[in-house]
Amino acid sequence: MSSEGGIPDPHRDAPRGRGARGRGRRPTRGGGRRPGQSDTREQILNAALELFATKGYSGTTMRGIAKQARVDPALIHHFFSNKEGVFQDAVAARVDMAALFDSLGEENLDSVAKGPGAWVARTFLSYWEDATTRPAMVAVYRAGLSDEAVAHVFRERIEDAFATCLRRIVPQHADRAPAFASLVSAQLAGLVMLRYVLQVEPLASLDFDELMDWLTPSLEVHFDRAAQEEGARGTEEG
Amino acid sequence: MSSEGGIPDPHRDAPRGRGARGRGRRPTRGGGRRPGQSDTREQILNAALELFATKGYSGTTMRGIAKQARVDPALIHHFFSNKEGVFQDAVAARVDMAALFDSLGEENLDSVAKGPGAWVARTFLSYWEDATTRPAMVAVYRAGLSDEAVAHVFRERIEDAFATCLRRIVPQHADRAPAFASLVSAQLAGLVMLRYVLQVEPLASLDFDELMDWLTPSLEVHFDRAAQEEGARGTEEG
Repeated sequence: MSSEGGIPDPHRDAPRGRGARGRGRRPTRGGGRRPGQSDTREQILNAALELFATKGYSGTTMRGIAKQARVDPALIHHFFSNKEGVFQDAVAARVDMAALFDSLGEENLDSVAKGPGAWVARTFLSYWEDATTRPAMVAVYRAGLSDEAVAHVFRERIEDAFATCLRRIVPQHADRAPAFASLVSAQLAGLVMLRYVLQVEPLASLDFDELMDWLTPSLEVHFDRAAQEEGARGTEEG
Repeated sequence: MSSEGGIPDPHRDAPRGRGARGRGRRPTRGGGRRPGQSDTREQILNAALELFATKGYSGTTMRGIAKQARVDPALIHHFFSNKEGVFQDAVAARVDMAALFDSLGEENLDSVAKGPGAWVARTFLSYWEDATTRPAMVAVYRAGLSDEAVAHVFRERIEDAFATCLRRIVPQHADRAPAFASLVSAQLAGLVMLRYVLQVEPLASLDFDELMDWLTPSLEVHFDRAAQEEGARGTEEG
C-alpha cells in the first residue's frame, strides 16, 4: 500500500478504544456492568454478528443466536428484548462511520483540500481493508439489504455518515445533503459491495493503490463540479 | 425525461417479448408446456419474487412460497426441486442484463461512441426506472446480498453482464474484464442500491435528468482514461 496520502488507521482514528482481537468496539453504553455480564453480552454480540453476516437478517433467529453463543435464549431477550435490538448493538453500533468522520482531528483535514474525493475514499475504505472491521461491515450490508425490516436502519446510517463527512470537508453544504454527495456515497457503497461483499472479479483482487488510481479521478469530478457551481453562485450573488 | 440520448425502452430492447403486466419475461425454456401448467408455474414464480424481494433469500421458504401462491408445496418441489431453482427462475432469469446488452441492435451502438458511460448508465438504469421491472431487480439485490448461498449467482450475473456490455462497446477489451469496467459496474450497482433499493435521500428523489448530469462525467472519466491507456500502449507497440 502506498504511504502517500495514507490510509487512515482505524485503530488510531476510531472514535473509541479497541481491545485485542477487534473486541470492545461498541459504544460505552452500560459501561458500569460487572465483567461477567459484559463478557456474556460480548459473546452474544459476536455470535449474532457472525450469523447476521452469513445468514442475513431474516435468516437469523434469537434461538439461533443463543445456540451459536451457547447461552440460554432467555438471556438474549433479557439483554436486548428483540432481534432489532441485537442487530443494532451487534452490527450497527460497531460500524459507526458517522462517528469515525466526526472524530477525525484537524490535522487530518489539511490533506482534504488536496483531494476531498481521495480523502473520503481512503477514510471510508480503511474500514474495509482492515480484516478486524470487515466482518461487521459485511454484516451491515447483508442484513441491511436483506429486507425492509432493517433497511431503514441502514438508510439512516448512510445518510448520517455522509452528512457528518460533508460537515467536516465542505462545511458550506452542511445545511443540506446535496446531490453530488449522494453520488459519491453511492459510488463508494457500490465499490464495497462488489469488492468486499460479493467479491466480483477483477475488482476483488485489485491492488489497493491501483483501485485508488482508478477511483480518485472519478470521485474528484463530483467535488470539482460542486466547487464550480458554488463559485458561479457566489459570483451571481456578489 | 430528456429525449436526448434516450433511455432505451426495455420493452423494445429486451431480449424476449413481454406480455401485459410484465409477465412472461423468463427464458423460453419448457415452451412446450400446456397453458394450465404454465399459468401455475407463473403464479408460483410471481409469489416467489414477491417473497424474495421483501424477505430476502434466507427468509423465504418453499412452504411460504406455496402459501403465497396458494398451491400445494409438493407442486413447487415438482417444478423447481429446491429453493435455489425457484430463485433462479423467479428472479435471476427475469433480470438478464447480459441478454439485454447482447440484444441491442447496431443502430443503438452508434450513440455509444458519443459517450459510452452515458450509454451504459441509461441502458442499465432503464430497467430500474421502469416500474414493471423494478421489483425483480430489487429482489435480485436483496436476495443476492442476503447470504452466501446465492451471492455466487449474483456475482456471476454481474460479471456476465459487464463482460457482455464491454464486448459491445469496447471490443478491444473483450478478452478480459478490465479494472475500469469493474469500477463502472460498482458505480452503477451502488447507485441502484442507494436510489432504488434503500431509497437514500436525496438520491431517491433526484430527477432522472439531474442524476444523469451528475453521473455521466464521473463515468466518462473511466472510459477516457481506458482509451488513453489503449492509445499509449498502441504507440509503444507501433
